[in-house]
Amino acid sequence: MRAAVWHGRHDIRVEDVPLPSDPPADWVQIRVDWCGICGSDLHEYVAGPVFIPVDAPHPMTGIQGQCILGHEFCGEITKLGANVQGFAVGDLITADACQHCGTCYYCTHGLYNICERLAFTGLMNNGAFAEWVNVPANLLYKLPAGFPKEAGALIEPLAVGMHAVKKAGSLHGQTVVVVGAGTIGLCTIMCAKAAGAAQVIALEMSSARKAKALEVGATRVFDPSECDALAEIRAVTQGLGADVSFECIGNKHTAKLAIDVIRKAGKCVLVGIFEEPSQFNFFDLVSTEKQVMGSLAYNGEFADVIALIADGSLDITPLVTGRIGLEDIVSRGFEELVNNKEHNVKIIVSPSPA
Amino acid sequence: MRAAVWHGRHDIRVEDVPLPSDPPADWVQIRVDWCGICGSDLHEYVAGPVFIPVDAPHPMTGIQGQCILGHEFCGEITKLGANVQGFAVGDLITADACQHCGTCYYCTHGLYNICERLAFTGLMNNGAFAEWVNVPANLLYKLPAGFPKEAGALIEPLAVGMHAVKKAGSLHGQTVVVVGAGTIGLCTIMCAKAAGAAQVIALEMSSARKAKALEVGATRVFDPSECDALAEIRAVTQGLGADVSFECIGNKHTAKLAIDVIRKAGKCVLVGIFEEPSQFNFFDLVSTEKQVMGSLAYNGEFADVIALIADGSLDITPLVTGRIGLEDIVSRGFEELVNNKEHNVKIIVSPSPA
Repeated sequence: MRAAVWHGRHDIRVEDVPLPSDPPADWVQIRVDWCGICGSDLHEYVAGPVFIPVDAPHPMTGIQGQCILGHEFCGEITKLGANVQGFAVGDLITADACQHCGTCYYCTHGLYNICERLAFTGLMNNGAFAEWVNVPANLLYKLPAGFPKEAGALIEPLAVGMHAVKKAGSLHGQTVVVVGAGTIGLCTIMCAKAAGAAQVIALEMSSARKAKALEVGATRVFDPSECDALAEIRAVTQGLGADVSFECIGNKHTAKLAIDVIRKAGKCVLVGIFEEPSQFNFFDLVSTEKQVMGSLAYNGEFADVIALIADGSLDITPLVTGRIGLEDIVSRGFEELVNNKEHNVKIIVSPSPA
Repeated sequence: MRAAVWHGRHDIRVEDVPLPSDPPADWVQIRVDWCGICGSDLHEYVAGPVFIPVDAPHPMTGIQGQCILGHEFCGEITKLGANVQGFAVGDLITADACQHCGTCYYCTHGLYNICERLAFTGLMNNGAFAEWVNVPANLLYKLPAGFPKEAGALIEPLAVGMHAVKKAGSLHGQTVVVVGAGTIGLCTIMCAKAAGAAQVIALEMSSARKAKALEVGATRVFDPSECDALAEIRAVTQGLGADVSFECIGNKHTAKLAIDVIRKAGKCVLVGIFEEPSQFNFFDLVSTEKQVMGSLAYNGEFADVIALIADGSLDITPLVTGRIGLEDIVSRGFEELVNNKEHNVKIIVSPSPA
């Protein structure tokens, strides 16, 4: 079959690879319909290896040095492992990418997304930029009848946004700041609105993304290159600051900004993948009783996202800015996202032969 | 009357000052029995002004440039304001130091300790290193019959420790690390034990304080100058790290250490007064879903601390390392704490004339 394989930084190849083996007893085989290019795929392309194991084989999957990318996908079940129940060949599904051991401290405490041996699909085990992919059945979610297949590829990033939103507790009636309006920022805006936030303020500098932020439900957008964002936020919050912020960029400067924009005793949820350390005086937390917490992937949010898409509460239409075939994934996918970042949100890839 | 007045860095003078005016309608006047020297008093002496207003008068109290220090105190009510009910002349009391406005966002949301116009006793309003002090009646706590007066001066730092402990949620059965075993670290150890923590590990380098940590209930002490504290903590936590940590120093390096020693999804409560920024990569929070939160002063914990001292759950005896008169507060108080820090915990001061 054809697949997009990471071989190294700036070296992703669409090539012939063997078909996956028949799925193990508790796994299924999926024929992929759509799979989105994620920011973390882009990190691997531009600056990798970040998450892909290269120095030693992954303890769960044996992956080392090469990996079929892709984890934001939907498709049809084509083969069932011997023990799989509750699913049938032909079911349209999506899958949580957090392949986990089930036995470590975190798995046994309801925290499978931070499993000690996490084997994230498409980074630590072969993924869905391929015609077929095997995944564990305990990570599957059936899509309801009539569910649009394109939306199936957006469930994963929306689950990231919803997980971050749930970390903050109830947002009902609250004022929220989302720092960065890339895919995860936009998904977080959508989930914060769906969770009842009264005001959702986006901070973004790209004009295309500023427009997107408003399109998906932000009530205000401030551009830190054009105004004093902190002063603007205080001006619309009785001088206090926001109740909650979400950092969705991963920049050493915007971490501090995300903390500065909240009121005392407010919460800052960090979602971005930070590459560099920040300069930060922790007295900023002590003197204000602010809370800062990390949010990684998701923990059961797929079902909630599917329900909210199905009932119309979340509309994925504004998020999809490109649809390409697998053969074009480097030129019209990765390179397009690198060179024309601000006009793209999500490019989805169809691995099926034309 | 005699009082210890802050005039500037390294300039605290015991001098004659006017008696406080008769207390306003909702205030009382106290004759002070004992008042402890706090780490924040020491900050004002060595590196101040930190909290004392110097550039403009405090909006609630008018204090500027000079202030009678002292906020860890107990004493007897000598005068009642016209509106005060529930207290009588002669009552032995202590007082929460968070004089607050009662009307700002934080006061009206149960967060008076982060009041926008906070006037902390002994830093932003005249305090209790004096024979008499006026305080608002809504901050008073009556001490039960037979309550030792010395213990009355330790309620305030214990309330700081208990507030930090409550921030972390239930500690029942958990493994806790307390970074630093000065007064606040020791109070936090005591409160964590009283809250049901199974293991309380202190990190401390001074031999006298290491012994104190064990005396007040730490189950283990590791000295980061003698061992790899992180490795030792992992060795006694199945390789995971502690559930919760408390940073009680305020050093730019120990903030990161306090975050490193907790397991994924663990909580780090910052209590120290940090003067310098840290280098910190926020990815350490994202990839682990750790939470970091500030804790400032207290919010109602005085009553709980008094009850736990009264029933014997908290024993303040190991905390008091010196008892001096007001006239000696600089030489045998501040200078002693600066020059002989590691052998002292709490020095308490009696302002009454000999």
